[in-house]
Amino acid sequence: MARKKLLRKRPHRKIGAPPGTLVHVGEPSQEPITFDVVAYDAEHFSEVTFGIGEVERCCGFGKTRTVSWININGIHEVAHIKTMGDCFGLHPLVLEDILNSDHRPKLDDYDDYLFLVLKIPFYEKEGGFRVEQVSLILGPNFVLSFQEKSGAVFKGIRDRLRSGKVRGRAMGADYLAYALIDVVVDRYFTALENIGDDIEELEQALFASPDTDTLESIHNFKHEMIQLRKSVWPLRELIGSLQRGDSKLVGETTRVFLRDVYDHTIQVVETVETFRDIISGMLDLYLSGISYRTNEVMKVLTITATIFIPLTFLAGIYGMNFEYMPELKWHWGYFGLLGLMLILAVGMLVFFRIKRWF
Amino acid sequence: MARKKLLRKRPHRKIGAPPGTLVHVGEPSQEPITFDVVAYDAEHFSEVTFGIGEVERCCGFGKTRTVSWININGIHEVAHIKTMGDCFGLHPLVLEDILNSDHRPKLDDYDDYLFLVLKIPFYEKEGGFRVEQVSLILGPNFVLSFQEKSGAVFKGIRDRLRSGKVRGRAMGADYLAYALIDVVVDRYFTALENIGDDIEELEQALFASPDTDTLESIHNFKHEMIQLRKSVWPLRELIGSLQRGDSKLVGETTRVFLRDVYDHTIQVVETVETFRDIISGMLDLYLSGISYRTNEVMKVLTITATIFIPLTFLAGIYGMNFEYMPELKWHWGYFGLLGLMLILAVGMLVFFRIKRWF
Amino acid sequence: MARKKLLRKRPHRKIGAPPGTLVHVGEPSQEPITFDVVAYDAEHFSEVTFGIGEVERCCGFGKTRTVSWININGIHEVAHIKTMGDCFGLHPLVLEDILNSDHRPKLDDYDDYLFLVLKIPFYEKEGGFRVEQVSLILGPNFVLSFQEKSGAVFKGIRDRLRSGKVRGRAMGADYLAYALIDVVVDRYFTALENIGDDIEELEQALFASPDTDTLESIHNFKHEMIQLRKSVWPLRELIGSLQRGDSKLVGETTRVFLRDVYDHTIQVVETVETFRDIISGMLDLYLSGISYRTNEVMKVLTITATIFIPLTFLAGIYGMNFEYMPELKWHWGYFGLLGLMLILAVGMLVFFRIKRWF
Amino acid sequence: MARKKLLRKRPHRKIGAPPGTLVHVGEPSQEPITFDVVAYDAEHFSEVTFGIGEVERCCGFGKTRTVSWININGIHEVAHIKTMGDCFGLHPLVLEDILNSDHRPKLDDYDDYLFLVLKIPFYEKEGGFRVEQVSLILGPNFVLSFQEKSGAVFKGIRDRLRSGKVRGRAMGADYLAYALIDVVVDRYFTALENIGDDIEELEQALFASPDTDTLESIHNFKHEMIQLRKSVWPLRELIGSLQRGDSKLVGETTRVFLRDVYDHTIQVVETVETFRDIISGMLDLYLSGISYRTNEVMKVLTITATIFIPLTFLAGIYGMNFEYMPELKWHWGYFGLLGLMLILAVGMLVFFRIKRWF
Amino acid sequence: MARKKLLRKRPHRKIGAPPGTLVHVGEPSQEPITFDVVAYDAEHFSEVTFGIGEVERCCGFGKTRTVSWININGIHEVAHIKTMGDCFGLHPLVLEDILNSDHRPKLDDYDDYLFLVLKIPFYEKEGGFRVEQVSLILGPNFVLSFQEKSGAVFKGIRDRLRSGKVRGRAMGADYLAYALIDVVVDRYFTALENIGDDIEELEQALFASPDTDTLESIHNFKHEMIQLRKSVWPLRELIGSLQRGDSKLVGETTRVFLRDVYDHTIQVVETVETFRDIISGMLDLYLSGISYRTNEVMKVLTITATIFIPLTFLAGIYGMNFEYMPELKWHWGYFGLLGLMLILAVGMLVFFRIKRWF
Ligand SMILES: [Mg+2]
Ligand SMILES: [Mg+2]
Ligand SMILES: [Mg+2]
Ligand SMILES: [Mg+2]
Ligand SMILES: [Mg+2]
Ligand SMILES: [Mg+2]
Ligand SMILES: [Mg+2]
Ligand SMILES: [Mg+2]
Ligand SMILES: [Mg+2]
Ligand SMILES: [Mg+2]
Ligand SMILES: [Mg+2]
Ligand SMILES: [Mg+2]
Ligand SMILES: [Mg+2]
Ligand SMILES: [Mg+2]
Ligand SMILES: [Mg+2]
Ligand SMILES: [Mg+2]
Ligand SMILES: [Mg+2]
Ligand SMILES: [Mg+2]
Ligand SMILES: [Mg+2]
Ligand SMILES: [Mg+2]
Ligand SMILES: [Mg+2]
Ligand SMILES: [Mg+2]
Ligand SMILES: [Mg+2]
Ligand SMILES: [Mg+2]
Ligand SMILES: [Mg+2]
Ligand SMILES: [Mg+2]
Ligand SMILES: [Mg+2]
Ligand SMILES: [Mg+2]
Ligand SMILES: [Mg+2]
Ligand SMILES: [Mg+2]
Ligand SMILES: [Mg+2]
Repeated sequence: MARKKLLRKRPHRKIGAPPGTLVHVGEPSQEPITFDVVAYDAEHFSEVTFGIGEVERCCGFGKTRTVSWININGIHEVAHIKTMGDCFGLHPLVLEDILNSDHRPKLDDYDDYLFLVLKIPFYEKEGGFRVEQVSLILGPNFVLSFQEKSGAVFKGIRDRLRSGKVRGRAMGADYLAYALIDVVVDRYFTALENIGDDIEELEQALFASPDTDTLESIHNFKHEMIQLRKSVWPLRELIGSLQRGDSKLVGETTRVFLRDVYDHTIQVVETVETFRDIISGMLDLYLSGISYRTNEVMKVLTITATIFIPLTFLAGIYGMNFEYMPELKWHWGYFGLLGLMLILAVGMLVFFRIKRWF
Repeated sequence: MARKKLLRKRPHRKIGAPPGTLVHVGEPSQEPITFDVVAYDAEHFSEVTFGIGEVERCCGFGKTRTVSWININGIHEVAHIKTMGDCFGLHPLVLEDILNSDHRPKLDDYDDYLFLVLKIPFYEKEGGFRVEQVSLILGPNFVLSFQEKSGAVFKGIRDRLRSGKVRGRAMGADYLAYALIDVVVDRYFTALENIGDDIEELEQALFASPDTDTLESIHNFKHEMIQLRKSVWPLRELIGSLQRGDSKLVGETTRVFLRDVYDHTIQVVETVETFRDIISGMLDLYLSGISYRTNEVMKVLTITATIFIPLTFLAGIYGMNFEYMPELKWHWGYFGLLGLMLILAVGMLVFFRIKRWF
Repeated sequence: MARKKLLRKRPHRKIGAPPGTLVHVGEPSQEPITFDVVAYDAEHFSEVTFGIGEVERCCGFGKTRTVSWININGIHEVAHIKTMGDCFGLHPLVLEDILNSDHRPKLDDYDDYLFLVLKIPFYEKEGGFRVEQVSLILGPNFVLSFQEKSGAVFKGIRDRLRSGKVRGRAMGADYLAYALIDVVVDRYFTALENIGDDIEELEQALFASPDTDTLESIHNFKHEMIQLRKSVWPLRELIGSLQRGDSKLVGETTRVFLRDVYDHTIQVVETVETFRDIISGMLDLYLSGISYRTNEVMKVLTITATIFIPLTFLAGIYGMNFEYMPELKWHWGYFGLLGLMLILAVGMLVFFRIKRWF
Repeated sequence: MARKKLLRKRPHRKIGAPPGTLVHVGEPSQEPITFDVVAYDAEHFSEVTFGIGEVERCCGFGKTRTVSWININGIHEVAHIKTMGDCFGLHPLVLEDILNSDHRPKLDDYDDYLFLVLKIPFYEKEGGFRVEQVSLILGPNFVLSFQEKSGAVFKGIRDRLRSGKVRGRAMGADYLAYALIDVVVDRYFTALENIGDDIEELEQALFASPDTDTLESIHNFKHEMIQLRKSVWPLRELIGSLQRGDSKLVGETTRVFLRDVYDHTIQVVETVETFRDIISGMLDLYLSGISYRTNEVMKVLTITATIFIPLTFLAGIYGMNFEYMPELKWHWGYFGLLGLMLILAVGMLVFFRIKRWF
Repeated sequence: MARKKLLRKRPHRKIGAPPGTLVHVGEPSQEPITFDVVAYDAEHFSEVTFGIGEVERCCGFGKTRTVSWININGIHEVAHIKTMGDCFGLHPLVLEDILNSDHRPKLDDYDDYLFLVLKIPFYEKEGGFRVEQVSLILGPNFVLSFQEKSGAVFKGIRDRLRSGKVRGRAMGADYLAYALIDVVVDRYFTALENIGDDIEELEQALFASPDTDTLESIHNFKHEMIQLRKSVWPLRELIGSLQRGDSKLVGETTRVFLRDVYDHTIQVVETVETFRDIISGMLDLYLSGISYRTNEVMKVLTITATIFIPLTFLAGIYGMNFEYMPELKWHWGYFGLLGLMLILAVGMLVFFRIKRWF
C-alpha cells in the first residue's frame, strides 16, 4: 500500500491570486465534457444531453416550471463553468470553489441558492481509498451537479426518475438534492466495509507474524483514517445543518428524509472513529507483542547459557596443564565430575522450571 | 473469545436503493411470527395473540379508548410491517428502520407518534455479548414493539399488567413505553456484571502469567467496549430527551419515572467508560510487566556470564600448550589459581549484591 | 492493597422488578436503628431519640414552626422508610433510591422538597478508601438524613446547634442542609490527604526499587481514582446546581454559603484529577526506569563478554593439540600472548570508555 | 530539584469547623505587620503606614472621596483581619478565605464589593517555583490588598501614583485594581522564562546523556506544570469575567485595560500548555532513546559473540585429547584451521555489514 | 535543524512597566523606514511613499473621501508609531501591541476602528519556519498596516489596485483589509507544503534507518507544530469573528469574501492538526521499529549461542586431562562425537525453524 500525500496541495499559481480568480485545480479527466439535463414534474419527464459548445442551451432550464437537474461532467473547462455561473446567477467565489477539486466538504447559503461541496469515496484494493469531489447548487426549482469524472454514481437516480414510479417525481428540487446526497453517503458504507476487511486482515497479521511491514501498514491505515475523517465530519455537519432547516429552500417534507440520511452520516462517523481507535491501539499491541517475543528469546538464551557456561568452566579447569592437579589422577575423577555436572544441570533446570521460564 | 466484526454491515442490495425501500436487514429468526396484543385500562384487561395472516386484526387497536400494546415477534416479513405501517399511519422511513435490525439507537419525533430504536444486550460466556434490536412506536394510546426474536424480555410486564396490582394499569401508553425501556436498561446491568467478572479474571492473568493470549484478550475486550459504547451513549441521549419532555406524548407523571431510568443509563455509561479506562491501561501494564521480566532474565544471564566468562578465560590460559609456562610447574599453582578464581567469583557476587541485582 | 470491585452491583432480585419496588440494597449494619430528632429556632432547642417501633412519632415534626432535623440511622428496614415516606409525602422512586445504598450522587427537585444523594469517603490504611451513602431530604422547614451506619459524622453539627452560639440556629432548613453537605465535603479533604501520602510513598518506591508490586500498586491507585472521580464530579455538579439557586427551597443567604462549599468541591475535583494525572504518568516512568536498568545490565554483560570472549578464543587456539604449532615452541610465546591479551583488553576498555558505557 | 507536595493541605483543625470560622492557614511570616495606606485623586496624594495596634485607623479610608488603597502586609493576626472586615463590611466567608493562604484563584461578586484571590509566582533556582497568595477587595472607591509577606511586588505602583505622572491618578479604584492584577500577571512571564530555560537544559541532557536523574527531572517538571496550571487557568477565567463587565464596579474605560491583561493571561496559559506538551513528550523520547541505545549495545555483543563463539568451538575441538584425531597430525592442520577461522570471521563481518549493524 | 525557543520572551524592561508604555519589542530591521500611501476609489488612484521625518504627512489620509491605505514598513521607531496613533486616534494599548512584534494573533473592536494582529509564516530550509507580525487598523475609510520588514508580501495587492481592473477598487476599506488577510492566509499554504515535504522525508528515514537524529527531528517537528498551532487557531477565530459580522465596519458584501478566507483557515488548521497527529504517532513507530530490530538482533545471538555453547562444552569435556577417560581411547570416539555434535546442531536449527526465528 503506497503512502498518501499529507496535504491537499493548493496550486502555486493560485496562491496570491485575487479572490474569485477562476482556475481549475486538479487532474483533468480525459473523457469528453457533457451536460446531462433532466426536467420533470409529477406528470412530465424529459431528458437531453448537450456536448461542448452547447453549454448556453442549459441556461433556460433555471426558469422552467418543472424541476430541472443539470449534471455537468467535466469541470476543467473554465469557460463552461463561467457560463453556467452567469446563467444561474452564481457568485464568483462559488465558481472558484467548484473549479477547485480539492475543497473540503461545506455548505454555503447564498439566500437564492445553496452551494454544497461533497466528497465521494472510491476504494481501490491497491492504494486504499481516494475521494472525488461533487459540487451541488440547489436553487428554487433546479439542481446543478458538477463533477470531473462522469461516474455512474448518479445513474440510478436518473433511471428512477425516468421510470416515474417513485416519490421523487412529485416533489421539488430539494428532494432531488437529498437523493443525490443519499447516494453519496451510501458510497461511504461501501468504502468502510472494504477498509474494515483490510483492518481485520491486518489484525490477523499482527497476532500471527508481526514485522516491519505490519508497522508500515498500521501507519498507512492511520493516514487513511485521518484523510477519511476530514471528509466525514464536515459531511455530517452540513447534512445536520440542512436537516435542521436553516434554509427556506429545503421544505418540511424533505427534511424528514434528510434526518434519515443524517442518521447514516452519524453511523459513518462512528465507524471511522471506531477504526481510528482500533488502529491506534494496534501500535501498542505490536510493541507489546514484540516485547513478549524478545522476552521469550532471552529466556532461551539465558537458560542455555546459565546451564552450560558453568559446566564449560568446570571442564576448562580440568583441561589445565598444571603439573600438580591431584584430581586428575583419581580413578573416578572423570565420572565424578560428569555426575556433578549432571546434578548442576538438573538443578538449574528445576530452578528455571520453578521460575516458570519454560 | 472470537473477535467481533468491526462494522455493522449494510447489505449490498440496500446501497443505492431509493429511500423508504422496505427490505429486511439481518438474520431472520426461525420461530413463527406472532402478534401479542394487550388492551387495558384501570378496570379492564384483555389479551390475544394473532398468527401470520391475522395481521390486519391488529389495526383496530389504535382507535380504542383503552391503552393497546402490540408486540410484533418477527420482523423479517416485509408485508406485515407494511400493513402495520398503513394501519397506524407510520412514515415509510420508520418502516425501513424497523426492518433494518442493524440500526443505532435513536429517537425520532413524528408529532403523532414517537419512534425509538433500542438495543438489548445479551451476554454469552462464549463469544462475549451481542445485541438485539427492539423498535418502539409510542402513539397517543398505543405502543407497538417490534423485535425479531420472541424473547421473554417483556414477559414480566405483561404478567404485571394482567395481575392488575400495579401502578401501570391506571396510566397511559407513555408509562407503558417507560416500563419497556426500563426493562431494556436493566439488561445492561446484567451484561456489565458479566463483563466486569471477565475483566477481573483478565487482571489476575495479567499479573500472574501474561502471554500472547492475554494480549489478544485485551484487544478483544477493547473491541467489545467500543461496540458497547455505541449502544449506550445514544441510549442515554434518547432517554434524556424523553425525560426533558421534548414531546407532548409523554406526560408529566411519566417523566418523573423517566428521570429515574435516565439515572440508570448514566450509571451504565459510567461503568462502560470505567471498563474502557481499565482495559486501555492494561496494555501499558502488560508491556511494563514484560519489560520487568526481561530485565530479571537479563540479570540472571549477566550475573552468570560475568562471573564465569573471566574464570573460563583463566582456565583457558592454563590449558594452553606453550612449552615455557613457568606457573604450570609451581607446586601450589593449581590451588593458587583456584583460590584466585574463588576470590574473583565472590568479588563479583558482592558487586552485584551492592548493585541490588539479586 | 486489595483490588476494588469494578462495578457497583445492582442486586439480581431488583433487575426486572417494577419501578418503585422497595428493596434494601447493600450490607445491613448490625447496630440498632435509631431516629435522632432535633427541633430548633433562634430561641428554642429540643432533642429526642426514638427507637424501632417509634417511627410514627417522627411524623409530626414536618408540620412544626421550628426547623426539624430527623437523622435516620439504619435504612435496611424497608417498613420504616415507607412510613417516613408516607409522613413526609415522598415519591416511591425517592424511597427506592434511599434504600439503594449504591446510588451515584445526585440532586432531584420534587418541587415540595429536594432529594440529594451524597457519598462520604472513609479512608482505611488497609484496603484504601471506601464510601458510605447519605441521602438528604430538604423540605420547607425540615431536613431528613438517611444513612446505614450511625457515624459520628454529623455529631459536631448537633453539638453546635445545642450550644446555640452559631449562626445556624437563626436560619432555616436550607442552612442546616448546607451544614450537612459542608461536613461531607470536608471528609474528602481528609481522604485525599491520606491518598496523597500513599502516592508520595509510591513515588519513592518507583525511583528507588521498582518491581511487580509497584506495578500492582499503580494499577490499584488507578482503580481508586476512577472510583473517586465517580463520587466527586457529580457532587460538584449538584452543589453547583444548589448554589445557582435553581430551587426556591434554598434562600439567597444560604446560597452565599453554598458558593463557599462549591469552591471546596472544585478544589477536591482538581486534586483528584491531579492525582489521576500523576498516577497515569507513573506507568510510563516505570517502563522508562526498567528500560534504563535493562540497558545498564546489558552494558555490563556486553563489556564482560566483548573483552573476554576474544581472549578466551586466543587461549583456546594455543590449547589445541596440533603437532605442528610453531608458536608453542617460542620461548617468549606465552608472555608475548599475555602481553597481546592485555593490550586487547585495555583497548576494549578504552573503546567502551569513549562510548561512555561506564 | 526537590519533589513538590501534591496537595494543598487543609489544616486538620479547620476540617469540621463551622463555616466562617476565622483561622489563619499557612506559614506566618516573621516580618512585622504593617498597613500601607495611600489616598489620591487627580490632584491630591497622601500616604501613611500604620503598625500593629493602629489597624482601626484604616477604617475611615473607605468613606473618603478620594481613592484609598490599603495594603495589608501580614495576615496571620486574625484579629486584624476581623477588624478590617467589620470596617469595610466584609462577609465572614471572605475573611475566612483571606486567612487561608492556600486558596485557589477566584472572583466572588458581593454586589457592594468584589473579592479576588490571586497567586503570585516566585521562581527559585533551587526548588523550582512557589506561589504566594494575594487577596484583593475592590469597593466603590477603595482597594484592599492582603498578603502575608511584604514583597516589593506592588512598590512600583505606589511610586508611580506618588509621581503623579500616570493615567491612574485620575481614574477610579477599578483602575487601581487593574494595575495590581497587571503586576501579578507580569510575574508569570518572569517565572515562565526561567522554567523555559530549565526545560531547554533538560532537553540537552535528554539527547546527550539520559539517566535516572533525567527521568526524575521530567517527573518533577510534570508536577510543576500541574501546579502552575491550577493557578493560571482560574486566573484567566477571573480576568475574563472582569473584562466582560459582569460587575458594575468596573467601568467601561478600565475594561479596555482589562482586555489587555486578559491577552497576557491567554499567552501565559498557552505557554504553560506548551511546556506541558513538551514535557509529556520527553518521557516518550527518553524511552525511545534508551531503547535505541540498548539496541546498539546488543549489536556489539551479538557481533562479538557470533564471530568468536563458533571459532572458540573450533579451537575447543582441536583441544580435545582423543587418541585418534587425524587432523592433528597434518602438517598444515594448524595453519589451515587458522585460515578457515579467518574466512569465517570475515564472512560474519560481511554478513553484519550487509545487515547494516555497523 | 536547530531547536526553537519555547517561549516568546517578553523583554525584561517591559515587565512591571505601566500599561501603555511604548517600547519596541523585537529585532529591529536594518532597512530604512518608509510609509507607502495609496488612495483610491472606483475612478481615482494615487500613490506616494514618505520617508522618515515625513510621518506627519500621512495624517490627512484618514479624512479623505477615497479609501486610504498606509503601509508602515519598520515599526522600531516609537515616535513614528506615536504620531500615527495621534493622527488616527488610536488607543495607547493598540500602539503598545503594534510595537510588540511578539504578540499572539487577535482582533480588538474599538468601535471606531478594528485592530488586528496577524502572523505571516516564512519557511526556510535551514531552521524551519519563522513568523513575522503584521498589525492592521481598519477604520471607516482607511487601512493601516504595520510591519517591521518591508516584505513584498502586499506588493501584489498594490499592483492590482493600480491596474484598476479589479473588484477591489470599487469597494470600501473593509474589502482592502480582507484582501490583505487573504494574502496572509495564502502564505500558510506555502509554509505547510514545505513542512509536509519535510515530514515525508522524515517518514522515509523512520522506516529505512532510524537513529538518534531521527528522534531529534521528530522532537523538533513537534516543537514547530506547537508554534504553528499558536498562530493558526487564533487566526481562524478572528477571521470567523469578522465573517460573522460582529462589527459594523465590515459590510455585507465583504463578509461573503471573509467566509471564503475563513474556509481557507479551516483547511490550514486541519492540516496543522493532521501533521501534529502524524508526528505524534512517529515516536511510537520509532520505538516499535527499534524494539523489532532489537528482537532480530537477539535472535541471531541466541541462535548462535544456543547452538555453539553446548557443543563447546562437549569439546571442553574431551579436552580435560583426567588420566582415566575411557572414551578418549575409543577409535571412533572423535568422529562419533563430531557426529553427535552435528545431530545436536541440526536439531537446534530445526527447533528454531519451527519457532519461526529465521
Ligand atoms: Mg458519534
Ligand atoms: Mg464515536
Ligand atoms: Mg468520536
Ligand atoms: Mg486515537
Ligand atoms: Mg498511538
Ligand atoms: Mg500509547
Ligand atoms: Mg459519565
Ligand atoms: Mg465518564
Ligand atoms: Mg472516560
Ligand atoms: Mg486512563
Ligand atoms: Mg494504551
Ligand atoms: Mg483507548
Ligand atoms: Mg480544574
Ligand atoms: Mg479538572
Ligand atoms: Mg485534568
Ligand atoms: Mg497524563
Ligand atoms: Mg497510562
Ligand atoms: Mg502511555
Ligand atoms: Mg489557548
Ligand atoms: Mg494551547
Ligand atoms: Mg490547551
Ligand atoms: Mg507519555
Ligand atoms: Mg500530559
Ligand atoms: Mg505515547
Ligand atoms: Mg476541522
Ligand atoms: Mg481540527
Ligand atoms: Mg486534533
Ligand atoms: Mg486530528
Ligand atoms: Mg506519542
Ligand atoms: Mg502530542
Ligand atoms: Mg507508550
